[in-house]
Amino acid sequence: MERLFQQIEEHASLYKHWLLNMCNQPSISAKNIGMLEMKELVMQLLEDLGAEVEEVLTTGYPIIYAHIDNGKKRTLTFYNHYDVQPPDPLTEWVSDPFEAKIEDGQIFARGVADNKGNIAARIAAVHAYQKVHGELPVNVKFIIEGEEEVGSPNLKSFASENPEKLKTDAMIWEGGMRNVHDKRPHISFGVKGICFVEMQVKGAAFDLHSSEAAVVENPAWRLVWALSTLKNSEEMVQIEGFYDDVIALTEKEKAFFETMDYDEEHTKGHYQIDNFLTNVTGIELKERLTAAPTCTICGLEAGHTGEGAKTVLPSSAKVKLDFRLVPGQTPKKVMKLLRNHLDLHGFQDIEIEQLAGLLPFNSDANHPFVDTVIKSMKEVYEEPPIIMRNLAGSSPMEKLLADTRIPAAQIGVANTESNFHGPNENIYIEDFMKGIKATANVIRHFGVV
Amino acid sequence: MERLFQQIEEHASLYKHWLLNMCNQPSISAKNIGMLEMKELVMQLLEDLGAEVEEVLTTGYPIIYAHIDNGKKRTLTFYNHYDVQPPDPLTEWVSDPFEAKIEDGQIFARGVADNKGNIAARIAAVHAYQKVHGELPVNVKFIIEGEEEVGSPNLKSFASENPEKLKTDAMIWEGGMRNVHDKRPHISFGVKGICFVEMQVKGAAFDLHSSEAAVVENPAWRLVWALSTLKNSEEMVQIEGFYDDVIALTEKEKAFFETMDYDEEHTKGHYQIDNFLTNVTGIELKERLTAAPTCTICGLEAGHTGEGAKTVLPSSAKVKLDFRLVPGQTPKKVMKLLRNHLDLHGFQDIEIEQLAGLLPFNSDANHPFVDTVIKSMKEVYEEPPIIMRNLAGSSPMEKLLADTRIPAAQIGVANTESNFHGPNENIYIEDFMKGIKATANVIRHFGVV
Repeated sequence: MERLFQQIEEHASLYKHWLLNMCNQPSISAKNIGMLEMKELVMQLLEDLGAEVEEVLTTGYPIIYAHIDNGKKRTLTFYNHYDVQPPDPLTEWVSDPFEAKIEDGQIFARGVADNKGNIAARIAAVHAYQKVHGELPVNVKFIIEGEEEVGSPNLKSFASENPEKLKTDAMIWEGGMRNVHDKRPHISFGVKGICFVEMQVKGAAFDLHSSEAAVVENPAWRLVWALSTLKNSEEMVQIEGFYDDVIALTEKEKAFFETMDYDEEHTKGHYQIDNFLTNVTGIELKERLTAAPTCTICGLEAGHTGEGAKTVLPSSAKVKLDFRLVPGQTPKKVMKLLRNHLDLHGFQDIEIEQLAGLLPFNSDANHPFVDTVIKSMKEVYEEPPIIMRNLAGSSPMEKLLADTRIPAAQIGVANTESNFHGPNENIYIEDFMKGIKATANVIRHFGVV
Repeated sequence: MERLFQQIEEHASLYKHWLLNMCNQPSISAKNIGMLEMKELVMQLLEDLGAEVEEVLTTGYPIIYAHIDNGKKRTLTFYNHYDVQPPDPLTEWVSDPFEAKIEDGQIFARGVADNKGNIAARIAAVHAYQKVHGELPVNVKFIIEGEEEVGSPNLKSFASENPEKLKTDAMIWEGGMRNVHDKRPHISFGVKGICFVEMQVKGAAFDLHSSEAAVVENPAWRLVWALSTLKNSEEMVQIEGFYDDVIALTEKEKAFFETMDYDEEHTKGHYQIDNFLTNVTGIELKERLTAAPTCTICGLEAGHTGEGAKTVLPSSAKVKLDFRLVPGQTPKKVMKLLRNHLDLHGFQDIEIEQLAGLLPFNSDANHPFVDTVIKSMKEVYEEPPIIMRNLAGSSPMEKLLADTRIPAAQIGVANTESNFHGPNENIYIEDFMKGIKATANVIRHFGVV
């Protein structure tokens, strides 16, 4: 381990050089800027590792696929993406987003946290291991797409059309970060799913004068009444069967909550709220955040929403609802249960359209890879890791991993103030170096069977 | 009666000339176009009648006040307004809105229905009566404001500052119209009141990512839950005490419902609805429309209301609510009851702001003026009048009449397809002539004590 980490330290400027090179190459998928150049830059780095590299064409940007096959027992795959978010608002950047700036041990550049820092760290980890040991203890694969920032529209078909490329024993996903305040690193082993729907109620063919509301149905009232049946004020979703498929937490998963930190006082001050929902606190709050499904009104719209009074009887009313799903639940089932619930409660007329859907994804906490990652992180970071069964948010993880038993861990080089997608995106060089070591350490431990 | 009506027929072109002159003079209060010229035109016509005319200054446009005092026992007052709505959208007019066009017995011009046709009809009626009888059988007053189309902001202070100008036994209000399909004229003796409020619920200081909804309160849910306690699906308002002050209908008022027509099939077809609210129909529908208070969501807004999915936890949620009030209810009391209801149900945090308030106004159906108007109308129109205790809508009537016992009737020269406030506003010349006769007939009958 010492030799490996020493090797990484000695090559620090090379690895930083790789990273800065990537940062200085714009690769904005949403605007088709620099995508080809970035793809070639990444492919070149992978080829220099001795990997077999190919690009898998899609209807969008190609997916880079690379593998180093040593005939080892286990295969470890790295998922990353070579595209970044647009740098807007440009005026809020203190330096050029595509000219990486180093200041006081921090690198500022669009994409340095999300996720070029991780691409560089994975490649550097493989490089360092090879330098020290000649050969990797595991087979390694890279799947690096160019469309993560635009919703990974081609990832699912890549997975279904290339089952052999997805053969792996475990996966290191992008993401992961380190607390700025106490330097504890985050590890998460999954994400919640999501089912995002729009529901619409229609009334008369056009808006009427509100005096007619005495005799003409108001879709806004119907929407309110329908919504009020979906969740009660104790935050329990009232859709029949909603919780039936939720897979109970194991004792090991519950123990993960103990590692989580959540600064309740700071958050309450920042959000300017007096209490958390239903006065939840402590372990229960952490459990709710990561293990409870949700039903959230993200948008409500009917009639006159401008300034002042307008006496209108709206002709339609809409809601956008976001269900965050936990293991066992699926968007498809939620759509079915929601339709059934509305029908059951007399709201057959309410139309439901699904706007987005992602399955939850969780690694089996008993898979040896989970302990391997935790151990690898503990050896690199002095501070105890924060371990999450899954993040509170959702991600395209499921597009590669749904219906597989492949465990995946999100670890990475960012920090809690990295400003993902915002101006002055940044990482600490120290976190970059630790990220390389952590990745190399996972390779090392996972190779010991 | 025959001589009076004959006189009106003989002066048809003079009276039409007055009307067209007024129509050709723009008087858009919202844009301060032509207001001075219009005011002078109306004052000149009143002076020509022999009335004492003065203008009462306000912080906005002056109110024209005129009276012809013959020392008679009764006084009859005409309320009208000399301002009109802007003519937008201009492109939908088939002729110049301020160059009256006559075609197939119809006059097209902005303001011809609302309400220059009625100003001309009132003045013509007085003129004709004077021509035939020399002296009017009643004292007559005119109150003609210039701000009705911008909400009559100065009418209430006019009433309180000029109690002697408001001394009258009865009032003829603007409004009133005739069915296009069966030619029955409408008479109404009042209006509903209104209490228009905006309620707001606040959550975190800014919008959050919707994954945080697992632990941070969502103001949109609180708004939905609060609203769902306000009214049940049988359309009964659940605010404690809401119906307590409602004055029961008298038998005579109930009988008015029998005169109302409401083409349910046509309306359903036009609005593209299958049924009326709670399947109401017939007399009950008419009663609901004119005699039931309402609670209507006019606007709902929270979070993301644009296209597509946006995973946001809104920081605030708003509703605009319109209560239509019936005799006995007041906006002030409704505000108090609503606050009390929200507090009672755990929604102390919901802010309520009143955006508009008008008292209901109803004439006492037993006042002799009510029968005088009905009789006068029956003698002029072959078709039986539609009599309404009050309209389903609201109007500034209460600003002059609240807390008085003065009865008021809305009768007029418009028709159900007059396109008030819209393009190609129009009246029929026949309805204009009948409107003059009906007004003259009210003067005649009301003078017989």
